[in-house]
Amino acid sequence: MIQKLIEGIMKKDAPVVVGLDPNLSFIPGFILKEAEKAAEGSVPEYCEKENVIAAEAVFQFNKKITDAVCDLVPAVKPQVAMYEQFGIPGMIAYKRTIDYCRSKGLIVIGDVKRGDIGSTSEAYARGHLAGKAFDVDFATVNPYLGSDGVKPFIKICKEHDKGIFVLVKTSNPSSGEFQDVLTGDGRAVYELVGHKVSEWGADCKEGVYSNVGAVVGATYPEQARILRKLMPHTFILAPGYGAQGASAKDLSGFFDADGLGCIVNSSRGIIAAYKKDAYAAYGDEGFADAARAAAIDMIEDLRGAIHGGRTVWNISR
Amino acid sequence: MIQKLIEGIMKKDAPVVVGLDPNLSFIPGFILKEAEKAAEGSVPEYCEKENVIAAEAVFQFNKKITDAVCDLVPAVKPQVAMYEQFGIPGMIAYKRTIDYCRSKGLIVIGDVKRGDIGSTSEAYARGHLAGKAFDVDFATVNPYLGSDGVKPFIKICKEHDKGIFVLVKTSNPSSGEFQDVLTGDGRAVYELVGHKVSEWGADCKEGVYSNVGAVVGATYPEQARILRKLMPHTFILAPGYGAQGASAKDLSGFFDADGLGCIVNSSRGIIAAYKKDAYAAYGDEGFADAARAAAIDMIEDLRGAIHGGRTVWNISR
Repeated sequence: MIQKLIEGIMKKDAPVVVGLDPNLSFIPGFILKEAEKAAEGSVPEYCEKENVIAAEAVFQFNKKITDAVCDLVPAVKPQVAMYEQFGIPGMIAYKRTIDYCRSKGLIVIGDVKRGDIGSTSEAYARGHLAGKAFDVDFATVNPYLGSDGVKPFIKICKEHDKGIFVLVKTSNPSSGEFQDVLTGDGRAVYELVGHKVSEWGADCKEGVYSNVGAVVGATYPEQARILRKLMPHTFILAPGYGAQGASAKDLSGFFDADGLGCIVNSSRGIIAAYKKDAYAAYGDEGFADAARAAAIDMIEDLRGAIHGGRTVWNISR
Repeated sequence: MIQKLIEGIMKKDAPVVVGLDPNLSFIPGFILKEAEKAAEGSVPEYCEKENVIAAEAVFQFNKKITDAVCDLVPAVKPQVAMYEQFGIPGMIAYKRTIDYCRSKGLIVIGDVKRGDIGSTSEAYARGHLAGKAFDVDFATVNPYLGSDGVKPFIKICKEHDKGIFVLVKTSNPSSGEFQDVLTGDGRAVYELVGHKVSEWGADCKEGVYSNVGAVVGATYPEQARILRKLMPHTFILAPGYGAQGASAKDLSGFFDADGLGCIVNSSRGIIAAYKKDAYAAYGDEGFADAARAAAIDMIEDLRGAIHGGRTVWNISR
């Protein structure tokens, strides 16, 4: 699956994934009104009317964003929390979003940050990566429980040609509280985790890179340089560009010498672009066009930083 | 909410939570057959027939187990992965299980191990603890992302009188890979996390204990002794009893001088008791009675270990 992601990045010359994390405050009023109308009449069992409306609005919003960016980027990353908060209707919107994005040829990274032990982790992996429930291509995984929590995901990845990105160094301000703690031998916890991720992924490589990737926040370029060296076969998913403060120049250390090895996420910087001064002219009705414009700007920005504007993907891998 | 849990434990003289983690292999054939019959006819939109059958079997199984143990124990702990693996119908079974258990007066601990950052963690907290989607009383939370990931949960707990249990030292064999790593000052990572959990919970105490609790595996009694001292106001949820190898004598260090401060989980040791030699006489049809017998045995076992068989809860807290 990682090879498919790399091919998508090269084909579109865009190491960019659009985060579909539709906070209700990002959704224009007219979509919410349409969703309210659609929810009139009977509300399905086990669903609350308020959640049915929110979930419908979320899906319609995602659909328009997806239509606007699907020719530009290889992948999307729905954040399941934004759907789960709306209960059953929310999870239906999550499933519909995944299925719609896949129908548009996009690779779907389910940002679920799951992690448990043994048969429980395997149940999560089956739920998200086995094609029978929530059918994503990659899932994010939390490593706190160690190998017992991660290996069942890898087993399912092998069976179904899927991949995972394990949290190594997250993009948020407090990520250092535990991740940066120095251990007795002078290495930080995130380095130990990075080392393990590289080990876990050693036997599921497709070419240079493994189906076991890592999440490394774009907001931590120094740590990324260390990790890039420590995990030469680990593809990086980098959140934190834009709204969280990272810029293209922070990202050069995330990529390998060929300009590959990393895909950068932007969520609200793209999907809520119409709320920013730079794209405000699009207005509420033009929110999807604003997202497209923001995606183009981000791609140009990254191309400049990675390979000076040139398309360098004509390498064989 | 923690006070409500403590009162439940004292009233039933049972610091025991039954884990509702119904692996399909635990469910007797006759329940699966009935579920198949119930699923005949139309399958709801966004649901796969196979998952509809599994989810219905899971709920019917849970219902019978709940009926059999609800007068014995104060709480249940459904493991969401076991539901999530069946997609939308699975999540409906999760919701139905929660609602049914609450209707029986049980406290529900949603074992979701969620954790993200900022507004995303808040969305998870709203989804599970705000009474509008999956309405549990406590949720388990993963601390790997630090304060940014946990504080939004605490905010929602305060608003809705709910609680969380943060993973500190998990029960699985590989939990030491990152959690036991010694830091520069000689403390293990789990101690740093325990210290933070205690800090996070300092301003949401109800009496002695806080609504911010900790998960500490029953399989690690030595670490529990350290943590019990380090976190005097932190209630412990201890998985790992029975099937994972811990016994009542391993658990004495988890409790405080009053015999409180901890609730012990058993999942398959209770819900799949009929598959063990000791309870095999109950047979498939008697699976719920077997669960009841196993719960009684576990409660007796713990009572003996904690306060020598006496009921000591006539203390005022």
